Amino acid sequence: MTNSNSDRRPGEFALIAQLFAPLSRGAPGAFGLTDDVALLTPPPGRELVLTTDALVEGVHFLAGDPPDSVARKALRANLSDLAAKGAEPAGYLMALSLPDAVPMTWLESFARGLAEDQRAFGIALLGGDTTRTPGPLSIAISLIGWIPAGKLIRRAGAKPGDLVFVSGTIGDAGGGLDLLKGNENMSGEHSNFLIERYRLPVPRIVLGQGLHGLASAALDVSDGLLADLGHICEVSEVGMTIEASRIPLSPALQALRGNADEAVARAATSGDDYEIAFTMPADRRNALSALAVKANTNVSEIGRVETGHGIHLVDSGGRQIPVSRAGYAHF
Amino acid sequence: MTNSNSDRRPGEFALIAQLFAPLSRGAPGAFGLTDDVALLTPPPGRELVLTTDALVEGVHFLAGDPPDSVARKALRANLSDLAAKGAEPAGYLMALSLPDAVPMTWLESFARGLAEDQRAFGIALLGGDTTRTPGPLSIAISLIGWIPAGKLIRRAGAKPGDLVFVSGTIGDAGGGLDLLKGNENMSGEHSNFLIERYRLPVPRIVLGQGLHGLASAALDVSDGLLADLGHICEVSEVGMTIEASRIPLSPALQALRGNADEAVARAATSGDDYEIAFTMPADRRNALSALAVKANTNVSEIGRVETGHGIHLVDSGGRQIPVSRAGYAHF
Repeated sequence: MTNSNSDRRPGEFALIAQLFAPLSRGAPGAFGLTDDVALLTPPPGRELVLTTDALVEGVHFLAGDPPDSVARKALRANLSDLAAKGAEPAGYLMALSLPDAVPMTWLESFARGLAEDQRAFGIALLGGDTTRTPGPLSIAISLIGWIPAGKLIRRAGAKPGDLVFVSGTIGDAGGGLDLLKGNENMSGEHSNFLIERYRLPVPRIVLGQGLHGLASAALDVSDGLLADLGHICEVSEVGMTIEASRIPLSPALQALRGNADEAVARAATSGDDYEIAFTMPADRRNALSALAVKANTNVSEIGRVETGHGIHLVDSGGRQIPVSRAGYAHF
Repeated sequence: MTNSNSDRRPGEFALIAQLFAPLSRGAPGAFGLTDDVALLTPPPGRELVLTTDALVEGVHFLAGDPPDSVARKALRANLSDLAAKGAEPAGYLMALSLPDAVPMTWLESFARGLAEDQRAFGIALLGGDTTRTPGPLSIAISLIGWIPAGKLIRRAGAKPGDLVFVSGTIGDAGGGLDLLKGNENMSGEHSNFLIERYRLPVPRIVLGQGLHGLASAALDVSDGLLADLGHICEVSEVGMTIEASRIPLSPALQALRGNADEAVARAATSGDDYEIAFTMPADRRNALSALAVKANTNVSEIGRVETGHGIHLVDSGGRQIPVSRAGYAHF
């Protein structure tokens, strides 16, 4: 591959040296991406926490999405997994599959997005693989972090009598996606907010790290609130009743769809929220309020854990609300 | 997605529970793939070693390749990186992007291939992500292992006067790929051997772990022998002279292309060998011979490290052999 045109991509090694090696500077064990592997040494007393998430163009992001926000979303989808478990992120590996048509300007903006979020979340690029693909652009990131030994907040652990909480607001990303796809029509500030929530989720790192000793179970909401709470129920072998009127909707989403039960059910089955859903014994409410202030993150109590199994979404009169789908499938 | 047809795929969660969760059994910290993250605790005194490699259908493997060998090749491409550094593999994360047309039978065979190599190399699946793609099937694996602190064999470290070695034979996978693509015509045992070498590389784990204290620099040969030796030269700031007649060619490759200088140059610029190339002070030859016996792996001395820079491929008269390309680009 030649580099005669300024927007033509250089070859793989030049690309790595130019765009990606600078992203490894914070990690001496990455050897400036000049070796086959990276070295990492966890601090004493910590366990390693590992997760991987792949984003595919047309499935997890749209061709027209700004490249820097695609990069940041790819990192944040992984950061959100660690946040929900109370872990501290350290570094990441990235496998990037690039169609020939992706220009150098796209990649430069993509790398700037990575750099920006590396600074924001205190992580570095440890290693990667760049390959050609005849298909859509895709980004597979494996994020590595650590946690004090024995402190991981699992999906297992919810107990009947615990309360159910969720951070932030729910359904915004689903609304943003519908706006971007032209399924809905709205403009102005509310529209911008929802699109931003789709493109740039906010991993709740400080909140998650504060949930040690408070939450009995937690996960990040990526498949849809009800589907993900269902995962906690399965693994914890419990059921839940969730009150629709307590599920937090942003003013922007309410402007788009109102706040009737149907709108709430739809919000609770959209994907890509990247909020933390968790359960907690009722006697820890005060500590949680203090944590929410410290983390500068709203936390809403939305229901309770019960014996039995499955999720019951109910209206203010306690009547069950029918839900047509459990979650958003990226599959 | 329904499961009415026996060859129809189940949904993402059923697929994970049925095919992939059993692959995590050797790793308690994988939680049976029912949580957002996996936990891993390195043994005391070890550093973590990390690598990632992605395989894309049509680029790194062919649509007609047996699914179990695709799985094993995806693992082995990563295992080879750790092998060349002297590291011990522990577990892996896998991001799998699946076109809708991939049937359940393909995935079952793919999972059997993973299981077989997990047993062979003592590793377990720690976590993963399964997503739909409108493009070709692709597999991104991140392999995690460890190494005694300070023992990593780097690409940096080759010194003028060191000898250059390579394990196994070179160019077989390139020959196998040409046979599979119909660029070459040959049948019988030699053809099967070359195709097998393309589909199923052999990571030199035992050899690599024995190179501590012997090798001054090492890497795995995946872009082509000369290109990869060039990487050692760059990072170590040295040059090399490689004798074409000493580059090890298999009888099968010689049957396909002969052993003239041109055939050797072609073998040394094919990809996917997954052998270990390394440099070593001359006074360690006896220890290396003992190691080669222990690892049951041929090791060939092919040249020497010099001051200067770049690779000089020479014939038996010391005359430089022109090389038309440095390596095989997966990019």
